[in-house]
Amino acid sequence: MNKKKIGVIGATGYTGSEIVRILSQHPGVEIALITSEARAGEKFSDVHPFFQGIVDDVLHPAGKVDDTQLDLVFLALPHGVSMEYVKRFAGRDFRIVDFSGDFRLGSPEVYEQWYPKKHVWPDGFRDAVYGLPELYADAIREAPLVANPGCFPTGAILALAPLVDKRLIAGEGIIIDSKTGVTGAGIKASDTNMFSNVNDNFKAYGIKTHRHTIEIQRILEELAVRPSGSRVDTNTDTDTDAAIDSAVRVDAGAAPHSHREAKDASASSSTDPFRKEQLAPLQFTPHLLPVDRGILTTVYARPEAAGWTTAGSGMYNSGRDFLEKIYKEYYRDKPFVHISSQPPTLKEVRASNYCKIYVDFDERTGNIIVISAIDNLVKGAAGLAVQNMNVMFGFDETDGLTHIPVSP
Amino acid sequence: MNKKKIGVIGATGYTGSEIVRILSQHPGVEIALITSEARAGEKFSDVHPFFQGIVDDVLHPAGKVDDTQLDLVFLALPHGVSMEYVKRFAGRDFRIVDFSGDFRLGSPEVYEQWYPKKHVWPDGFRDAVYGLPELYADAIREAPLVANPGCFPTGAILALAPLVDKRLIAGEGIIIDSKTGVTGAGIKASDTNMFSNVNDNFKAYGIKTHRHTIEIQRILEELAVRPSGSRVDTNTDTDTDAAIDSAVRVDAGAAPHSHREAKDASASSSTDPFRKEQLAPLQFTPHLLPVDRGILTTVYARPEAAGWTTAGSGMYNSGRDFLEKIYKEYYRDKPFVHISSQPPTLKEVRASNYCKIYVDFDERTGNIIVISAIDNLVKGAAGLAVQNMNVMFGFDETDGLTHIPVSP
Amino acid sequence: MNKKKIGVIGATGYTGSEIVRILSQHPGVEIALITSEARAGEKFSDVHPFFQGIVDDVLHPAGKVDDTQLDLVFLALPHGVSMEYVKRFAGRDFRIVDFSGDFRLGSPEVYEQWYPKKHVWPDGFRDAVYGLPELYADAIREAPLVANPGCFPTGAILALAPLVDKRLIAGEGIIIDSKTGVTGAGIKASDTNMFSNVNDNFKAYGIKTHRHTIEIQRILEELAVRPSGSRVDTNTDTDTDAAIDSAVRVDAGAAPHSHREAKDASASSSTDPFRKEQLAPLQFTPHLLPVDRGILTTVYARPEAAGWTTAGSGMYNSGRDFLEKIYKEYYRDKPFVHISSQPPTLKEVRASNYCKIYVDFDERTGNIIVISAIDNLVKGAAGLAVQNMNVMFGFDETDGLTHIPVSP
Amino acid sequence: MNKKKIGVIGATGYTGSEIVRILSQHPGVEIALITSEARAGEKFSDVHPFFQGIVDDVLHPAGKVDDTQLDLVFLALPHGVSMEYVKRFAGRDFRIVDFSGDFRLGSPEVYEQWYPKKHVWPDGFRDAVYGLPELYADAIREAPLVANPGCFPTGAILALAPLVDKRLIAGEGIIIDSKTGVTGAGIKASDTNMFSNVNDNFKAYGIKTHRHTIEIQRILEELAVRPSGSRVDTNTDTDTDAAIDSAVRVDAGAAPHSHREAKDASASSSTDPFRKEQLAPLQFTPHLLPVDRGILTTVYARPEAAGWTTAGSGMYNSGRDFLEKIYKEYYRDKPFVHISSQPPTLKEVRASNYCKIYVDFDERTGNIIVISAIDNLVKGAAGLAVQNMNVMFGFDETDGLTHIPVSP
Repeated sequence: MNKKKIGVIGATGYTGSEIVRILSQHPGVEIALITSEARAGEKFSDVHPFFQGIVDDVLHPAGKVDDTQLDLVFLALPHGVSMEYVKRFAGRDFRIVDFSGDFRLGSPEVYEQWYPKKHVWPDGFRDAVYGLPELYADAIREAPLVANPGCFPTGAILALAPLVDKRLIAGEGIIIDSKTGVTGAGIKASDTNMFSNVNDNFKAYGIKTHRHTIEIQRILEELAVRPSGSRVDTNTDTDTDAAIDSAVRVDAGAAPHSHREAKDASASSSTDPFRKEQLAPLQFTPHLLPVDRGILTTVYARPEAAGWTTAGSGMYNSGRDFLEKIYKEYYRDKPFVHISSQPPTLKEVRASNYCKIYVDFDERTGNIIVISAIDNLVKGAAGLAVQNMNVMFGFDETDGLTHIPVSP
Repeated sequence: MNKKKIGVIGATGYTGSEIVRILSQHPGVEIALITSEARAGEKFSDVHPFFQGIVDDVLHPAGKVDDTQLDLVFLALPHGVSMEYVKRFAGRDFRIVDFSGDFRLGSPEVYEQWYPKKHVWPDGFRDAVYGLPELYADAIREAPLVANPGCFPTGAILALAPLVDKRLIAGEGIIIDSKTGVTGAGIKASDTNMFSNVNDNFKAYGIKTHRHTIEIQRILEELAVRPSGSRVDTNTDTDTDAAIDSAVRVDAGAAPHSHREAKDASASSSTDPFRKEQLAPLQFTPHLLPVDRGILTTVYARPEAAGWTTAGSGMYNSGRDFLEKIYKEYYRDKPFVHISSQPPTLKEVRASNYCKIYVDFDERTGNIIVISAIDNLVKGAAGLAVQNMNVMFGFDETDGLTHIPVSP
Repeated sequence: MNKKKIGVIGATGYTGSEIVRILSQHPGVEIALITSEARAGEKFSDVHPFFQGIVDDVLHPAGKVDDTQLDLVFLALPHGVSMEYVKRFAGRDFRIVDFSGDFRLGSPEVYEQWYPKKHVWPDGFRDAVYGLPELYADAIREAPLVANPGCFPTGAILALAPLVDKRLIAGEGIIIDSKTGVTGAGIKASDTNMFSNVNDNFKAYGIKTHRHTIEIQRILEELAVRPSGSRVDTNTDTDTDAAIDSAVRVDAGAAPHSHREAKDASASSSTDPFRKEQLAPLQFTPHLLPVDRGILTTVYARPEAAGWTTAGSGMYNSGRDFLEKIYKEYYRDKPFVHISSQPPTLKEVRASNYCKIYVDFDERTGNIIVISAIDNLVKGAAGLAVQNMNVMFGFDETDGLTHIPVSP
Repeated sequence: MNKKKIGVIGATGYTGSEIVRILSQHPGVEIALITSEARAGEKFSDVHPFFQGIVDDVLHPAGKVDDTQLDLVFLALPHGVSMEYVKRFAGRDFRIVDFSGDFRLGSPEVYEQWYPKKHVWPDGFRDAVYGLPELYADAIREAPLVANPGCFPTGAILALAPLVDKRLIAGEGIIIDSKTGVTGAGIKASDTNMFSNVNDNFKAYGIKTHRHTIEIQRILEELAVRPSGSRVDTNTDTDTDAAIDSAVRVDAGAAPHSHREAKDASASSSTDPFRKEQLAPLQFTPHLLPVDRGILTTVYARPEAAGWTTAGSGMYNSGRDFLEKIYKEYYRDKPFVHISSQPPTLKEVRASNYCKIYVDFDERTGNIIVISAIDNLVKGAAGLAVQNMNVMFGFDETDGLTHIPVSP
């Protein structure tokens, strides 16, 4: 069978090297072109010496795309640069997975509020699909342009999606406290990623203003206003829904119209109590860890008034048991999302495409706590991009992505 | 002048070595006795080789206390062991600073709920004062027994005290997300502190159950039910109060009884709107950082409905400016608390007794965010203990504690 | 085609988890049995949580070997324990790759000098082949028992083999200064591998006494007394020999009997000037790095008086050029040994089976400097074991071992 | 008593911040001026935030020196820049301690061979004294210009000085294998000190060419050609010499003229067997550790044929015992050099001015092994500079330098 021909545009960064690491062992594709403007003429392995003797392809300028036959192109380029290339490639018959934030936010207006640049290709938003296959696989399958999610949003959205989709939390009071490895800051040396500023150190940054905030906000709002369960691909979630119904019924007797019924009714109407305007602005605070790879996200949310929070004496041993069941069913067909019974560590997912999620409920405080762990360069970037490519080509979603985490 | 004679009981752990590091350079004291049951007969520097040629005192068994003249004893012992010694030393004329959690919680009943042990010396609670000089200096001055705070509580309480004391936040929805260095787990080798389980890694632990939760809760509740400003030593806080009044007045015109007036009135009555029962259970989640020293705590809280949050157009440029002024005045006489204009890093306080605090207000979400950074072994343990000693002896509070942070 | 059935005896350590990580993605084998005495009955992924949902096999006691059909067994057991199992498995028809040091030293006498234990299975030495395929592939192919090399010896021997085999260095004055990651100390928590004893720290250990010293010594001596080139598998090395001849000839004119001629003559006689007794005792000093994986070895050696060291004006630009050519030819058919033109870093080989070697000659001092880098858990243990297995089964030597290094 | 007035020229680097950290707690001096060209007008604590509230002096341009009364100036400037300032300050009555390499090498000719720059102030070499008080205290006391040693040379020279001074080693075959923390690369962000290029990584660099090579070589040669013991300040070393004599005598009987006698005789003649030309070019190889601070140096040397190496059966238990005694006596009056009975770790000296040295002799190989550990920013730079200042001012050598190592 013919292998699909892939181009990697922009190969000098971490996502560039990581996508090549994954693609070069993928059974269904071949890398037909790797580009770099700054290092054109050199070998890929000159830029990334750990590929010496493994991937020694010569780097070309991006213009080489014009005379190369390609089925799909990955744009591993900075924000603001990517849209120039998407514009330039309009009309070409290859598909595009874009790593940047240029087409993730739904409209040029929102983009320009959070990114310091005028958008040069508003048309792209018409084509772009948000590349999180756990939520948007159907749309990704046909999309000409996939906007690969940001690293923080991937971990945060996967942590919150079941709660939002199943209307289990209040729209207010969501806190997303994230901790990222240093590779998230890119490969260019700066005071931010200098060893002695990071090693044995820790800090918060981007407080109130990090642009992944709006990306998370947008996707969860979309999930909040859609009928429950509808965005989870073709997963009908019957069991999950039954579970929620059962849990809620524990104390639903007193109320003639249970919370659940109201929600079901509203699913196809405008009276859904969990409307967009009820997902209040989210708080997102990133911190910088002295580690290379990985994002661990700790989410705090308040349950919507619901029977399950006191259902310990009923069919669930605890709120945690109830929530864990919800999460397991929500992600039961998603090969890269694992629900853990213990808080996950970063090394449990390092160098792999897995996302591990732990969910808990604190009866004392009434808070739901969710923790997700991903490798920011794999599930948070290059692995997710290949997962999107697999969906786009109709490959098995796990092709080329079965790397077992490297630990320690 | 005669130097005060000090005993260190339990010298093989990190707090033991750190208290000796500080005391051996303190101008007003001499170390008269260092004890260890397990290593008695060896030199202190055999246990901690970086003291070789510097502090080579022989370790004695604790029984040696009986025939040593001492003015003050530090108990650097595990939880559950300390209370045995406090009991044993009852009636002795030296004073005690206890590093353990045995006398921090106000009553044996609460202790036994959170620590897995029967309390053997309930009498101790009568004498014990919580050793946070920024809040309790007057009581510490006379206390026979000072319960040195836990490392997480020190950072969390200093971050929240101005907000609670000044009644600026709602009692509900407080989230304390903390990240600690590995030395917090003690000096004994275990899977928890093994290099390859920690290095390049990160995780949450003790979710919902960490016993520092109740310690933070107790102290903040105490602060919440006392008249505003009353616990901050002899600091009258006139300026701060005026600042709050001004800020609130911006939109107080419409309300016949401003929030502030109500609060002032309530300070000595039972109608204080910020009563103990309004400080809802706090959420506290610790995480383990791949660093040796330091605790960075990120606090999220909701403001009590108050004018200052929209006062940006008035006398403050922003909510952050308002809060920063409150914090600066609250801690203006406290030599070890610095209010930073940028989120602090752990290395900015490493190996020093400083606590750096950054406070912010997010107009978009309505959340207050406070970040504090301390060295868990110094301000979170041994340095704080010496600060307590300084207060107890009437020394200058900074004696022996002027170490400049070691960075990088 | 039928997959070979593999048993892994002792799965709770790092080499156990690493061999499973590699085997579970190997196209030619299936894992038929994983054992652990201490954790029998639990799942493999209970011990190593990063395998959850990936390898969830139940652990059996080793007795289970008796009723399992197996083609090959890996013994991932401590020194001293392995020999008990080799003894016990005598007569079974599966082959064995042993990770321990129990059969590496050629005789029970030498073993007992360096390991603190009486050897219980001297017969094993008759069968055992030293498992370094770059040197012993022919013997490994047929061996019933392969003694997988120690981690330090693998890096040190690969660094020195071309020099010893080609008689380019003096037997005296060889210094091997090695630096290893912490996983070399095993998975059991101890003061040695405790985070705060290692992080931001560095030290030498095992000075003069590390037992890998004798393992390196033995293999290099064996290489030193064999005809040059003879141990390098079936590689005839014609080009390399010609290169050496040419280089030596530059100044050989003056000497009636060149060094090279003497050596050629001696290859099959007892007059080889590079006799075993001339390979003086090696100095080997290990150091402990604050990293998880990897061994970097810096070797210093003196050239045997030879023309090439001053050949810069002749056919080689420099001694380094000459040596690099020798190394490249020596390892030209060895897929896992890469000769680098720059000193390699540990991350360039991390989580892969590659060994990177840099060789240099300092005209100012007259020293040869060789640097090798390996991942101690892969090329230094589990990867090398699988490479041995590939040779034993007649698989392609790289089957299941094409993992690209994980960097960063 | 009047405090000495100190100027720090160039305060934005690590040595600048470290010298201020030390001086600001020194009892005998006050910092009268801190300069920076790039950050003039800002506060010192703007550049180094961990000084906020501690040292908030305003930075001035260096021209400010002209109208400031100063007793001593520290030049914390890059190589090549320092000499411009030394030239400019010629004729001023303050003394200078220069951190750069500009005046360490004895002559402009040697300087220009190893540093890529024409020397602009050859006159400076006339005044400059090499600032290692353990060897040159008498000269430092009077010197107008002290060339503060490089970080690697400090550790390497202290490790080798007793062996060279006492003529205990052969001049050939000295190997210095050093491992440094990242701060040695300076404060400017670059690919070299970027976190993910260093963390969990390790490499050699500057092989054959590092310019500290010639600095070490020069000082040891100077020591080698001077009468034994003569450079060690006013320390007469009688005991040490007797020890050597005794040891040598063990097998000296056979030789009519012992090695020792020859050496003693040669001390004031031209027949010293340990002449300069016998100290062959040294091999120095630095490596980059993933730690902030510290240099650990492993030295290998060959003993000169001497009785003590086989004296184990005599008055010494082992060669190690003999050498340890030599080292202890050699450094017995040197407050910052500690001889350890175990290989030291970097943390044992971190943030302190101590140098820890371990010496051993391997009877099997005949090699002497010496390991030294220093903090490169303190004993390897700023602390050593203050130690020089103390000697220059006639202060106690330890004034302001009694910081206990920070561990962990």
